[in-house]
Amino acid sequence: MSESFLDLGLAPGLETERIRVLVQEAQSVAGHGEISVPVGDDAAAFTPPQGHDVVVSSDASVEEVHFRREWMTWETIGYRAVAAALSDLAAMAATPIGILLSVALPPELGVETAVALGHGVGEALHGHDALLLGGDLVASPGPVFLDVTVLGHVGNPLRRNGVSLGDEVWVTGTLGGAAATIHDFSAQMEPHPEVRKVFERPCPRLTEARWLAEHLNITAAIDVSDGLLRDARHLAMASGLAIQIVFDQVPTLPSLESIRKTSSGAQFLLAGGEDYEFLFTAPAGSVNQVAELFKDEFGTEITQVGHAHEGVGVSVHGLDVGDLVDGFDHFGLSM
Amino acid sequence: MSESFLDLGLAPGLETERIRVLVQEAQSVAGHGEISVPVGDDAAAFTPPQGHDVVVSSDASVEEVHFRREWMTWETIGYRAVAAALSDLAAMAATPIGILLSVALPPELGVETAVALGHGVGEALHGHDALLLGGDLVASPGPVFLDVTVLGHVGNPLRRNGVSLGDEVWVTGTLGGAAATIHDFSAQMEPHPEVRKVFERPCPRLTEARWLAEHLNITAAIDVSDGLLRDARHLAMASGLAIQIVFDQVPTLPSLESIRKTSSGAQFLLAGGEDYEFLFTAPAGSVNQVAELFKDEFGTEITQVGHAHEGVGVSVHGLDVGDLVDGFDHFGLSM
Repeated sequence: MSESFLDLGLAPGLETERIRVLVQEAQSVAGHGEISVPVGDDAAAFTPPQGHDVVVSSDASVEEVHFRREWMTWETIGYRAVAAALSDLAAMAATPIGILLSVALPPELGVETAVALGHGVGEALHGHDALLLGGDLVASPGPVFLDVTVLGHVGNPLRRNGVSLGDEVWVTGTLGGAAATIHDFSAQMEPHPEVRKVFERPCPRLTEARWLAEHLNITAAIDVSDGLLRDARHLAMASGLAIQIVFDQVPTLPSLESIRKTSSGAQFLLAGGEDYEFLFTAPAGSVNQVAELFKDEFGTEITQVGHAHEGVGVSVHGLDVGDLVDGFDHFGLSM
Repeated sequence: MSESFLDLGLAPGLETERIRVLVQEAQSVAGHGEISVPVGDDAAAFTPPQGHDVVVSSDASVEEVHFRREWMTWETIGYRAVAAALSDLAAMAATPIGILLSVALPPELGVETAVALGHGVGEALHGHDALLLGGDLVASPGPVFLDVTVLGHVGNPLRRNGVSLGDEVWVTGTLGGAAATIHDFSAQMEPHPEVRKVFERPCPRLTEARWLAEHLNITAAIDVSDGLLRDARHLAMASGLAIQIVFDQVPTLPSLESIRKTSSGAQFLLAGGEDYEFLFTAPAGSVNQVAELFKDEFGTEITQVGHAHEGVGVSVHGLDVGDLVDGFDHFGLSM
């Protein structure tokens, strides 16, 4: 009943037309690439480089739960869905191969919506050598639903469970921008343009993660999708250690510095999520040596935000409300 | 914001509990297997056999569009979603590796629903050496949404575009059962148990397709998901030839034989879809030689339903309404 992306052009009707324009727009923005069996058969086929694993992950989002039409364009909705999924490949220092995109659209959303979604999808793929490999477009009787499956390859996938005692915890870029934007939208305020931009076009740290994995002995890694504290806790729990975050060192956008010490500000930085930065651990003293080189290469900083020590869970040093050991959700930080 | 299957057990809450029970149930029914990075990191990782392509496809379904809660159990909904996706691998004669399952569930559906869905997913994976590699579980403010991504591997994927002049067109099993069941449900009638069973537990022809690809020179193949005529047309169009279907030869269930010559019966057999049988072409005379062996091996028949000839599109020979050339949708066969 559904029209697979892989059945392009063979059946009449609205679904097929919406698929056609979505795929066409995404491919034209993303750029084409090589693939054994292209879009147009029952499945797409590819061969990973010899000795490399294929890595795969899915990320679903639903209208009214994860996004609202009033808050962003369809381009942004498409972009963010794909960027969020690609960010899971960055967490493993994998190289993208492509994505499958499944979309459920209410019938009243016509080809313009499909073109706009496709444009955002293409923007997110562009520059990462990632292809739209296939997917599915179906009708929805209610909300828009997006599911993005990402495929990549990697020789040695980074894991969460390798943190060692004394390791430093580092993060790329800045945190809090996405949460601050959502907060402003909810309060019907206009976010600062710098903050809004970070929310609308987050950069999955694919190239940065591979560069860091080549230049450093990264012991564990994750992307910041659920918020710094929660993602750091994933690393700590998987590794059987504790992580302390030093609040003053958590990097944020210049326009959010003034609210850092407010309770919302602390919440944006520590628990906000959806910033899609790359959080990693490495032996003490090793990262500093490549921090300048990283900045020269990418125009983005990496910042030490904490370290691993004996114990369980995640604590925060330097918050006015006191040091929070594992129980940060007791302090109004929504998780 | 969403709880990835890969974040199991690290956060409290309803979503996490529903994921945990769904995955646990699916894995216990499906049986476990080997995988480089199991469920529990940012992505799953695997290595295909050397010289094999990875093949990948997605299949989405939405409540009220593709299924109704009143018509089937959650076990059946989970089973059918996975079977439909696996069937795309059968179309390429690929061997399954695993699936990613994204589900959007309304909050009022609790852990019992997750267990039932997981059970059906596990049933569909069982016997095919396919693993639940990951996925995503999110909240839905409206209908249930399922998206299944299947991954497999194959040395030489079967394609749609290899039909040659004079090739015979064959199909596994029987057609029409799924459409007849949906028809009965819509008319608030109880389907014949034999017919209903075919609808509720369709068998993706994975092993059968690989066996046939080993024993025959299969020139093109597809799974019957959209209906015999439409799927045959996909083969014909991709290959630049015409296919004639001989209506009297189209195999159906014994309990549907009596309505074969009615307009609904013809519609179930020719345009019904969702039977997930394997439709393939091979040089004239070659398939007959292995048909008995196939039946001995699988307890299922393969049947010749037509042949390829010069021209465009698909025609049906032997329908009372006359021979339909390409325009079968003019005769009330809904596509």
